[in-house]
Amino acid sequence: MEKIILTDKFTKFSDHWSPKVIAEMNNYQFKLVKIQGDFVWHCHYETDETFFVIEGQMMIDFESESIELNEGDMLVVPKGVKHKPRAKNECKIMIIEPRGVVNTGNTEGNLTSSNDIWI
Amino acid sequence: MEKIILTDKFTKFSDHWSPKVIAEMNNYQFKLVKIQGDFVWHCHYETDETFFVIEGQMMIDFESESIELNEGDMLVVPKGVKHKPRAKNECKIMIIEPRGVVNTGNTEGNLTSSNDIWI
Repeated sequence: MEKIILTDKFTKFSDHWSPKVIAEMNNYQFKLVKIQGDFVWHCHYETDETFFVIEGQMMIDFESESIELNEGDMLVVPKGVKHKPRAKNECKIMIIEPRGVVNTGNTEGNLTSSNDIWI
Repeated sequence: MEKIILTDKFTKFSDHWSPKVIAEMNNYQFKLVKIQGDFVWHCHYETDETFFVIEGQMMIDFESESIELNEGDMLVVPKGVKHKPRAKNECKIMIIEPRGVVNTGNTEGNLTSSNDIWI
């Protein structure tokens, strides 16, 4: 059992859109991601997904609206809802979701990451 | 679907050791708590529990050590592990755990809170 210092963990990688696991709670994972630019439209048919902004600003586009998230803001995207995260400048976020969720959901492509990369 | 601004949510209550639900992801809940002083020794036999410090400093006592958590630090307490949270000065934290978990775990008493109080 060890505490996790998020600021330390963020110094351990620099790539974008590639989630790194920092902790597990039951079968859920906490993942840090640095994001910049546009992600792909996708959805997760099997689970909700939580976004929490640690530093910076991001947008999440939905079919009918766009939601801006700033440092300390959180959003739970319900399962099955199409969304596209994006960030003009680099933004540091934490994602919380069950183990095994693929980052690009139903849309495999260049931005699809491997799972279970721990830092 | 609405974004959750943690700083706004923390202005909505002032009592200590009384978790307020701000979001659900599948069957998991995100709860904000203001803590000060000593909580009770307890454990949760059925689930891990995640502590995330939003503002301030807290300690979690375990049988063999004490862990200090500062702003931006996180700790997952494994199920079945006895622990006692405490904070010298008021500390604002977020707890993540399955819906229905009782805050005092196996130790009912004065500090036992009602569940599912949303803010």
